[in-house]
Amino acid sequence: MTELSPLLQAPNQADLLLTHEAIQPFIHRTPVLTCTGLDELAGCQLFFKCENFQKIGAFKMRGAASAALRFSAEERSNGLATHSSGNHAQAVARTAQKLGVPAYIVMPHDAPKVKIAAVQDYGATVSFCNNTPAERQAALDKIVVKTGAAFIHPFNDWGVVAGQATAALELINDTKRVLNLILTPVGGGGLLAGSALAARYFSMEATVWGAEPRNVDDAARSLVSGRIEENVDNRTVADGLRTNLGDKTFSVIHRYVPKILVVSEEEIIAAMRHVWERMKIIIEPSCAVPFAAVLRYPELFAGLNVGIILTGGNVDVDHLPF
Amino acid sequence: MTELSPLLQAPNQADLLLTHEAIQPFIHRTPVLTCTGLDELAGCQLFFKCENFQKIGAFKMRGAASAALRFSAEERSNGLATHSSGNHAQAVARTAQKLGVPAYIVMPHDAPKVKIAAVQDYGATVSFCNNTPAERQAALDKIVVKTGAAFIHPFNDWGVVAGQATAALELINDTKRVLNLILTPVGGGGLLAGSALAARYFSMEATVWGAEPRNVDDAARSLVSGRIEENVDNRTVADGLRTNLGDKTFSVIHRYVPKILVVSEEEIIAAMRHVWERMKIIIEPSCAVPFAAVLRYPELFAGLNVGIILTGGNVDVDHLPF
Repeated sequence: MTELSPLLQAPNQADLLLTHEAIQPFIHRTPVLTCTGLDELAGCQLFFKCENFQKIGAFKMRGAASAALRFSAEERSNGLATHSSGNHAQAVARTAQKLGVPAYIVMPHDAPKVKIAAVQDYGATVSFCNNTPAERQAALDKIVVKTGAAFIHPFNDWGVVAGQATAALELINDTKRVLNLILTPVGGGGLLAGSALAARYFSMEATVWGAEPRNVDDAARSLVSGRIEENVDNRTVADGLRTNLGDKTFSVIHRYVPKILVVSEEEIIAAMRHVWERMKIIIEPSCAVPFAAVLRYPELFAGLNVGIILTGGNVDVDHLPF
Repeated sequence: MTELSPLLQAPNQADLLLTHEAIQPFIHRTPVLTCTGLDELAGCQLFFKCENFQKIGAFKMRGAASAALRFSAEERSNGLATHSSGNHAQAVARTAQKLGVPAYIVMPHDAPKVKIAAVQDYGATVSFCNNTPAERQAALDKIVVKTGAAFIHPFNDWGVVAGQATAALELINDTKRVLNLILTPVGGGGLLAGSALAARYFSMEATVWGAEPRNVDDAARSLVSGRIEENVDNRTVADGLRTNLGDKTFSVIHRYVPKILVVSEEEIIAAMRHVWERMKIIIEPSCAVPFAAVLRYPELFAGLNVGIILTGGNVDVDHLPF
């Protein structure tokens, strides 16, 4: 297994290339798909980077692998740990399984049973806590002390950011046109920050924008106010995007991302449905947010080549929002 | 537009190659996908030919284009006509639109609204009839007499069989391993007959088997009895497979297809769900039938390279069978 050096600051161009090489055993090269029906609907040319086909069904595999390989073999010999109720939990569990070390995942009591089962299927030990940031952190600290496992933060970690950046790197390389814009959803900001860096280093032209549910528009407000904002309420169908930014991800986003577009719940669900019906691929609500923004603000995209990172496909087919 | 000659008998090797070339403007080259998770579940190596990503969302585009191009420009100048409540209706409508001629589609009164709308979206004129073979045929005959449109049968037509054969032709060419078996669902038998011919002409090794819902196992019984059997009841979740074989498709299937496997409704739904959840792609119930057969009869497939044609992805996401 290729080892990577710890990152003490935002990854540079060489860091991203080394990261991409090192995580190869953990990831698929996912396809970039196009759909003339959706292009007509949107009035621009769309290039969808299909991370819903990624291992564990989401781009999070990239960041988890990138962060894990930055620990020495000794540091990670006692296992990997994280708190997450979503795709990051599966990504850390699968990474640990591939590295042959234990995984310890803290999940809220009320996490969906299918998500708990998926994590356990990768051989991870799951602990439960109440769904508040303080109790989550306390439960995780206890496990780290007890087991000596290495903690991988879901987003506010330069190793994670470097890993997430590789999706945009592949999108830029695999798209036959010059992309004018790249859109990603924004939750904790790992993917958005990573994509912004990748575009800066590897694209001749692309600017990276975020897209966010109006119900949890903390990142859009953070961009305006210049400091990390929080949400009063975090109800949204886009369950992967409820988190606030971290200081590391915000520092990159603040500098390199000029715009974060917000969309309504109805717009998210309609966009998700369009992708399902026209492209015949399964995407989760969180990753319909950028396409929803394209449909909501067509004047911003008219005639452009727009890359969209479809972040994941892990939905519970028994509970669809349609 | 390349023209094709009418076929008075089952297509030969050259016919299939010419057909494949002629229909290029009408079709996508759909990908062949693999999934390690499903391979582990099945105990064999599976190669999925993704016709759910085909234009109009189903392989039927191939047969409709192939048949339409066998009429002279004059013969088809008054339009194309067919009866179908399913993907063939959309395929004929889209083919006519691309050829710049009218389309006349007879559909049952109780056809799903989304299917009617899809056909109308391609500019076709839809007429309605009661859902019996006799009334359907009467309604169609009336339209053909009135308009002079050229009729394209959904399956019992050598032009259609030649078109459907091109899916297996691509599957054989695009799969890096030598396929031991190819599985297709069977309704009217156009795809199964075409695939059997393609395997005979272009594969070193592959045998073609059909797969069918137990509730409408007319083709499996036909293979045993040596004559075209019918179903007493045609209730199945696999709504594309309710039809009986035609004399043309049966003559090929009887000769070249040694086995048709049958599966229960529960097995079809479970297989469909596995594909959705693991591969993150949308397939309709009819095309989950072959994979259901692989899971139902693992001893027949152990260790083999098995090609499966995923025939379509046109489902109503408001009415899923899960």
